[in-house]
Amino acid sequence: MSLVIVGSVAFDTLETPHGRREKIVGGSGTYCSLAASFFTQPKIVAVVGDDFPEETIELFKSRGIDVRGLEIQPGKTFHWEARYGDDPNQRTTIKTELNVFKDFRPQLPPDYRQADIVFLANIDPDLQEDILSQVQKPKLIAMDTINLWIKTKPGPLLRILEKVNVYFANDEEIKLLSKEQNLIKAGKKLLERGPTFIVIKKGEHGALVLGKDSVFGILAYPCEKVIDPTGAGDSFAGGFLGYLDKVKAFDKEGEIRKASVYGSVLASFIIEDFGINRFKSLPLKDIENRFFQFKKLVSF
Amino acid sequence: MSLVIVGSVAFDTLETPHGRREKIVGGSGTYCSLAASFFTQPKIVAVVGDDFPEETIELFKSRGIDVRGLEIQPGKTFHWEARYGDDPNQRTTIKTELNVFKDFRPQLPPDYRQADIVFLANIDPDLQEDILSQVQKPKLIAMDTINLWIKTKPGPLLRILEKVNVYFANDEEIKLLSKEQNLIKAGKKLLERGPTFIVIKKGEHGALVLGKDSVFGILAYPCEKVIDPTGAGDSFAGGFLGYLDKVKAFDKEGEIRKASVYGSVLASFIIEDFGINRFKSLPLKDIENRFFQFKKLVSF
Repeated sequence: MSLVIVGSVAFDTLETPHGRREKIVGGSGTYCSLAASFFTQPKIVAVVGDDFPEETIELFKSRGIDVRGLEIQPGKTFHWEARYGDDPNQRTTIKTELNVFKDFRPQLPPDYRQADIVFLANIDPDLQEDILSQVQKPKLIAMDTINLWIKTKPGPLLRILEKVNVYFANDEEIKLLSKEQNLIKAGKKLLERGPTFIVIKKGEHGALVLGKDSVFGILAYPCEKVIDPTGAGDSFAGGFLGYLDKVKAFDKEGEIRKASVYGSVLASFIIEDFGINRFKSLPLKDIENRFFQFKKLVSF
Repeated sequence: MSLVIVGSVAFDTLETPHGRREKIVGGSGTYCSLAASFFTQPKIVAVVGDDFPEETIELFKSRGIDVRGLEIQPGKTFHWEARYGDDPNQRTTIKTELNVFKDFRPQLPPDYRQADIVFLANIDPDLQEDILSQVQKPKLIAMDTINLWIKTKPGPLLRILEKVNVYFANDEEIKLLSKEQNLIKAGKKLLERGPTFIVIKKGEHGALVLGKDSVFGILAYPCEKVIDPTGAGDSFAGGFLGYLDKVKAFDKEGEIRKASVYGSVLASFIIEDFGINRFKSLPLKDIENRFFQFKKLVSF
């Protein structure tokens, strides 16, 4: 089994109704790899500056994450600053300092190129395309993106979409990319462009997983205490892909459904505290417990 | 079995992205009674003017709805005008002409007072309170309301809430009434005021049913063709209460869950066409089919 995750490892400065945090560790690659590490040993591909804390890299290693693809470059780590309103689905980006990420041209270590699953987290579509050209016959390619790239680089984005099996998008992104207001229509339109599954993430409203002839709906876990929504989507993808890598299932609908629920479970934990805190000591049995609570949540 | 529904029977003028309709039959009591009529013989309490079409009253009768509580007064029927945006969850009221509804003081026919289930659809809380004073020991009281009454008559509203078993609210309304942004917190806060179950309707995102120690989540049926969202919430309540009246279950959680799914099923049909069209000839087997599709939608 092998899962390669390409994304950002970053510092986040966050303002939420529950307080402010300065330069805590975040990034799509971070959240996704940590979430996946509960199921498998993901290989991370990212770049950080020489200001990045050694203890976080040690945390990655202690959780079985392969960090040979994590470059350390002279300079400052990518830094993102954002503010959340009372509605945790509403987020405003205040500042994005790419720093060492600006000139990042990842070269995958040789054994990374044999990965079964490749996840292209939100980064420049040109970089995503470059990564794809380096991997050999993965069994499953998944991608995520953000509005910025949909607006500025729709061409490369749609080219990548043709090659991926699973596209993770939130409701805003999929409406923008498909030019459809109805989520089901939007998803079906994008399914025609290549992916086997479209995962539409809807924050506190859960997610929809659309396949060629199937729709699967997942509730979000009913959290009363949403402290910091950062990383929920990336943790969803990490739980989803980590589980698939563990069970070596790449297109069975039943496993895709379970993977989606594990994604939702991991997302429901990460928002209960700031940054990656919640993943630092999360027993596997708590994950399994919540998985079964999801069954109870929707059974009738 | 007996279910009394107090609400509005009205003319609606609607502007939607799919077209405009002038003075078509609508109203909370209309949608709710028709939806309930697939399971039981509801008794309606409402008032219309002498301009109201006889054929709609005949439709009510043909569907087994007891119309002895439907007064016909000289004057014009209640008329509501609204506009929907591309997002069917966003609705703007353009005009509300109460007409004969302004002086409506319903007197329940004697056998209505023995009802097992009483539904107070969205009307003036003073009227809701008056109705409650007329019924004798119902086994289940349910209510709905809108932002207007939460803002203008919170006192009477909270008094009624103490007496009801099921409170139906949409996400906006429950946030406003509870002064909580998180839906789970909002629901729990209102559970403390009396109701046994709070049903939070979230439009295209489905619904949450909160009990003292339980949470049940229902997806909305994935509709590609949302023509007219009017009446979705009232049809939900009608399907929900009609089913409970049929099975004579008033507080069993398992039945409340099934009732919620039937509510969601009925709501998913009504939005597929303008006004009450979809309920005019809807085979029971289509309702049952969709109920089982809901099971498939969430099973993993």
